Amino acid sequence: MESSSALLTDLYQLTMLDAYRQSGMTSPAVFELFVRRLPRERGYLVAAGLEQVLQYLENLRFSSSELDWLVHSGHFDRPFVDWLADLRFTGDVWALREGEVFFANEPILRVTAPLPEAQLVESRLINIIHFQTLVASKAARVVMAAGGRTLVDFGMRRAHGAEAAVWAARASYVAGFDGSATVEAGRRFDLPIFGTMAHSFVQAHDSESRAFLDFARARPEGLVLLIDTYDVEAAVRKVIELAAVLEPEGIRVRALRLDSGDLVAGSRLIRRLLDEAGRQDVGIFLSGDLDEHKVAAACVAGAPATGFGVGTRLDVSADAPSLDIAYKLQAYAGRPRRKRSLGKATWPGAKQVFREIGADGRIARDTIGRDTERLSGWRLLESVMSAGRRVTDAPTLEQIRAHAVDRLASLPEQCRSLDGPLPLTAVISDDLKRLANEADAAVQP
Amino acid sequence: MESSSALLTDLYQLTMLDAYRQSGMTSPAVFELFVRRLPRERGYLVAAGLEQVLQYLENLRFSSSELDWLVHSGHFDRPFVDWLADLRFTGDVWALREGEVFFANEPILRVTAPLPEAQLVESRLINIIHFQTLVASKAARVVMAAGGRTLVDFGMRRAHGAEAAVWAARASYVAGFDGSATVEAGRRFDLPIFGTMAHSFVQAHDSESRAFLDFARARPEGLVLLIDTYDVEAAVRKVIELAAVLEPEGIRVRALRLDSGDLVAGSRLIRRLLDEAGRQDVGIFLSGDLDEHKVAAACVAGAPATGFGVGTRLDVSADAPSLDIAYKLQAYAGRPRRKRSLGKATWPGAKQVFREIGADGRIARDTIGRDTERLSGWRLLESVMSAGRRVTDAPTLEQIRAHAVDRLASLPEQCRSLDGPLPLTAVISDDLKRLANEADAAVQP
Repeated sequence: MESSSALLTDLYQLTMLDAYRQSGMTSPAVFELFVRRLPRERGYLVAAGLEQVLQYLENLRFSSSELDWLVHSGHFDRPFVDWLADLRFTGDVWALREGEVFFANEPILRVTAPLPEAQLVESRLINIIHFQTLVASKAARVVMAAGGRTLVDFGMRRAHGAEAAVWAARASYVAGFDGSATVEAGRRFDLPIFGTMAHSFVQAHDSESRAFLDFARARPEGLVLLIDTYDVEAAVRKVIELAAVLEPEGIRVRALRLDSGDLVAGSRLIRRLLDEAGRQDVGIFLSGDLDEHKVAAACVAGAPATGFGVGTRLDVSADAPSLDIAYKLQAYAGRPRRKRSLGKATWPGAKQVFREIGADGRIARDTIGRDTERLSGWRLLESVMSAGRRVTDAPTLEQIRAHAVDRLASLPEQCRSLDGPLPLTAVISDDLKRLANEADAAVQP
Repeated sequence: MESSSALLTDLYQLTMLDAYRQSGMTSPAVFELFVRRLPRERGYLVAAGLEQVLQYLENLRFSSSELDWLVHSGHFDRPFVDWLADLRFTGDVWALREGEVFFANEPILRVTAPLPEAQLVESRLINIIHFQTLVASKAARVVMAAGGRTLVDFGMRRAHGAEAAVWAARASYVAGFDGSATVEAGRRFDLPIFGTMAHSFVQAHDSESRAFLDFARARPEGLVLLIDTYDVEAAVRKVIELAAVLEPEGIRVRALRLDSGDLVAGSRLIRRLLDEAGRQDVGIFLSGDLDEHKVAAACVAGAPATGFGVGTRLDVSADAPSLDIAYKLQAYAGRPRRKRSLGKATWPGAKQVFREIGADGRIARDTIGRDTERLSGWRLLESVMSAGRRVTDAPTLEQIRAHAVDRLASLPEQCRSLDGPLPLTAVISDDLKRLANEADAAVQP
């Protein structure tokens, strides 16, 4: 699922590699990954996916079947393919820790490696970081909206393929979700998995009561019953009767799940019926096309929900299904470079983000400077890979999640707003501006 | 990449399977896959992904490591896991051919299998069909906008993971794209791959002219040069000079690529400069945040483009990143079933779509009826799998693509419009309406 194919790249990376090889351009290059602009409804982004990037870089090599295919494809000749056979990633990587919050134009990952290596990995590296960052950033908003209620990722079926499904589970967990319904994500990342029941289970039975009873006896632990296949009120009354039957068997109904209709009115009705029957102990779990706005609206309206299942809109980041993310050459052979295309100009050279924290514990200012500068604030980019090897052991997912909780708490209020958030704008250091002028002067376009 | 893990499912599928097993509910179930509503900007959808569904069903089995994990997860006991070890998909599948066009509520795939098998596969089956159909449907709109100009999928880097990247290449090719930049998709699906050059290649060189020369000599075939790293006009003039140098070496510049700024004005400028130099033979390839609307606008404005690279907005289906797709139980043990949840009610029983074609060769009417009905029109759902085995050999991707071209040509004009298209609404047969009433009467909710 996390594919390690070296052919997961754009064809032009390989054609450029062939040209670099033929002209001997293998000096060290510096590339940086950053987001040019935040989507309108994002006041911050949450970095995620670094672990999968490092796994990709550590294992990067062309298999013999991939090399054979390249020759047979007719796009490349044998000398180039033989050269590819020996290619490994031998570079250095600096990156934000997963779970860190960041803003536009801030480099979140820097690769320093022989030009062909740094170039080849562009496509997959963006592909990995982009999606996990996208989902972690969306999920963090849902977490803020839910005010501590249980949140479960339900999005596998409409995630864009298998890798998206398991990574969405991982990224949302990083951002504070309690777990996912996706079993493979539970196995892959050792994160909590949750499950209830589907309408088809109820429909397959001749009566809803029978369906509830069968399910309760077969799956007595953490019992959650789905009560909207036919009529909600009738179903809740059946559950109340059933609970009395099940109690002597040691089976407790933990929650009811509502997946359709007006979730606020529906959950209020369910709560009232449960409370009237003395079942204050039974929770209410809401799902059905939810996102941070619907979760917030339900909470604000006082819907008596104990948890939410959030699916499609989380896993595809429905309001912003992509980020304007780029991986750009900043220096080659020791000389700073920058692109000056209309609307896509970049700051040259290896950079660092210096973050200053205010007396209130919130982020006061981010400054993008040269990595050699000494500016106040702590440095967001840390060394994570040196000469193709990890510098430290991989953090556990729990450690990453704890880091995200900590960093999300450092966001200024203006960034946290669900509607019309105002992201911070990083300051550009004077040294970096000078370097940009020098780089422009040095290149003969 | 196309993961075959049987754990690619939602936890509730497994808990329901355990309940079905314990209560002996293993009679045949009929599930159907359909889209409830089309996104606002879709006048039709294009079915894609069936081939990967059939591969998944043919190979479905729990590996010993998956089974071990299930036991250790604490969610399941040994008798259930032992039972899972023997689970295979033994059912029948009827489906629309890939490349077929369809509308809301029309079943596009029907599974008839013992209830646990049909239930288990829900999550992955939706996951596969949803994404490929999403991208094929978006891509078909781009194809209609481009009026025969070359179209290449550039979206790998911002596709949602590896599987999404290669499937987006496949689905867009099915819908009429000429190929993809994603190398792995070329290998996997034997579809044409295309590549140009990146800004980083130009930036890595001390001069743009040197970069063009190096690239041309290293990669002389199908040479496309990127001319907007610094100044477009200056770059085009350099290419014109260079072309004269390269011609004696037998190297021809095939096209120039513009990736930023005003693509219409930019391409006109490039065309004028090329024409003035007598280089009418050099094409112009446009890219940069394109979708069907921008491609159509460029074509309508008379931009002299010979082709377009379409990336992110295609691969994430930016204006509609998900479909309201569902897989619902329609019958169990010979008895029709339907869900009556608010806003999510379904038509019961095994169904068929009957399509009538008018004298103009366009679709005149679709009727959703019972599969046993004899209505006029040809039947869209065909038998593709029987008792877990394919009924026929898999069609080639070229055959699927040709079928899509043919079916897209049968769409009424109202569906084809890029802005505010009007999808067809399938008629419900009288027999099906009667069956729904019977199903409601038979179930004791």
